[in-house]
Amino acid sequence: MKLRELGEFPFLRRLQERLPSDSRVLLGVGDDCAALTLPGMTVITTDAMIEGVHFRREWTSSVTLGEKAFAINASDIAAMGGEPTFALLSLGVPQETEVEDLEAFFDGFLRAAREYGTALIGGNMSAAPCLMISVTLLGQTRHGVITRSGAKVGDEVYVTGTLGDAALGLRMSQEGRTDAFAEHVKARFLCPTVRFSVSQELAMHRLVHAMIDVSDGLLQDLGHLCAASQVGVLIDAPALPLSTAYRALLGENLWDTALGGGEDYELLFCAAAESREAIAHLAQTSGCMITRIGRIVPQSDGLSVRGPDGVPLRLTHSGFDHFRQG
Amino acid sequence: MKLRELGEFPFLRRLQERLPSDSRVLLGVGDDCAALTLPGMTVITTDAMIEGVHFRREWTSSVTLGEKAFAINASDIAAMGGEPTFALLSLGVPQETEVEDLEAFFDGFLRAAREYGTALIGGNMSAAPCLMISVTLLGQTRHGVITRSGAKVGDEVYVTGTLGDAALGLRMSQEGRTDAFAEHVKARFLCPTVRFSVSQELAMHRLVHAMIDVSDGLLQDLGHLCAASQVGVLIDAPALPLSTAYRALLGENLWDTALGGGEDYELLFCAAAESREAIAHLAQTSGCMITRIGRIVPQSDGLSVRGPDGVPLRLTHSGFDHFRQG
Repeated sequence: MKLRELGEFPFLRRLQERLPSDSRVLLGVGDDCAALTLPGMTVITTDAMIEGVHFRREWTSSVTLGEKAFAINASDIAAMGGEPTFALLSLGVPQETEVEDLEAFFDGFLRAAREYGTALIGGNMSAAPCLMISVTLLGQTRHGVITRSGAKVGDEVYVTGTLGDAALGLRMSQEGRTDAFAEHVKARFLCPTVRFSVSQELAMHRLVHAMIDVSDGLLQDLGHLCAASQVGVLIDAPALPLSTAYRALLGENLWDTALGGGEDYELLFCAAAESREAIAHLAQTSGCMITRIGRIVPQSDGLSVRGPDGVPLRLTHSGFDHFRQG
Repeated sequence: MKLRELGEFPFLRRLQERLPSDSRVLLGVGDDCAALTLPGMTVITTDAMIEGVHFRREWTSSVTLGEKAFAINASDIAAMGGEPTFALLSLGVPQETEVEDLEAFFDGFLRAAREYGTALIGGNMSAAPCLMISVTLLGQTRHGVITRSGAKVGDEVYVTGTLGDAALGLRMSQEGRTDAFAEHVKARFLCPTVRFSVSQELAMHRLVHAMIDVSDGLLQDLGHLCAASQVGVLIDAPALPLSTAYRALLGENLWDTALGGGEDYELLFCAAAESREAIAHLAQTSGCMITRIGRIVPQSDGLSVRGPDGVPLRLTHSGFDHFRQG
């Protein structure tokens, strides 16, 4: 059945009946506003996914799309050292959308939300020329807020997981590649892993001076962090963590995509040299790879990347900007 | 200059520099999340405007579009008896958009926000095939939360302002009419007045059992309120408040548009008969027309509208649903 046959309100009523009750919420979906009390420090973020810009329906299942819509916002909460609590969902939906697909999208979103103890408390749905998903996510920080602006000269720079897989996954989706390596990076593009346990441990043990998630590409996001902290950075390209699939798929220009490609949603953070051992221990206990990739330098030294011979790399791609090409 | 020439991040930096600092906000625009403490009861809502669905750029200035994006969300906060406090803005923007137009949009949004003591604390911007504006607005309620679900049999039903102007204004925009009456209703469509002072007074004096804002049309929104309150309603069509322009523009089918047309963003509320005098007094002191249009009846009596002769009207339009035609 198409959404225009069922109608907006019958769809929303069906959805509402499926939402679990949540004692933290005085008033959830179904009134003009949600109402709730938010003790302590609240962190809040909003991010959108737009059909034809961030995804194509033929590349992803509706369930995975819902999971990703939650994950990209949850990653911003994790980058502050927070835990997600409440979500609002603003949807633009083409009238010809199948009700089944929209329900599958909600299944994915709600499954991901539930996994992290997050309740859907509000939203809206309207007609649109393409599928547009805008999420607002609230979170709480129990161990203080980790910002972008606390990096200090001499700090070491770390990143979780591997870099460049998502951007390469996008390319493999565009090229229709289906071999095992391509499938590995496509999965990384279609639904990122949010690094919550690492984020929580880093926050709890106060190991971090500054943190950001890598959504626009390593260099772009490093640039944001350095500008906010008024520092420079020196990155060691051979240290960048690359997956086996990434290495196999990319022969030449090995680092370009890892440096510039967006949507990895890994955590990028700066910590004092004395924290090196504690961070190595955390990587072991969390089961999440954490790699030291460079160090913070004075702002006057700018942002630079060193190749295997110690010579500065000439950068061909500085990260993703929605509105600037090349 | 077009946005693709300036780029996303330079635009956002320029915008950020214009935002006033706000002592309530620990961390505003410019990190992964905003961070703040939210004492008391928080109300929160999200609503979207999509080019080609909710507006066309040739009908409205960018400033007015920004004001309306704030107003339609603020109206939801008012409908809970709340005051807006913090806003997040998620934008999808075509690459060919003029930077000047986007700045004018922000001017309008920020002007409206400032008028109601609201700070823009976060957002995101991405490329999109058409302009898409999704706002999340937080508010606080100092006098308790007014829901849709408290209407009681015997309550009287009131509405602020006049009904049907916005829907008629949309029609006048579509038809390109420019006479004085048409301009009056077009202005009501292009930027609604949020009924804050009435909402605050009603909340403070606890005059209201249930409230909703009229965004999808009187009957549709009455239907939501009655369903939530498990009551029915009897509306007296000749009592509906209609503007002079509305009466002049519509000869026949005088009530259809007032009953079914969306986007008036007036407050619709239910109060005990004993509050009649206090509400009449409030209308006088606030300078906002408040009209008694019907009464709450048992749920088994359903939702009905009586014409001038006391005979039930046959309804041709029951309100706006984005996905159902006719």
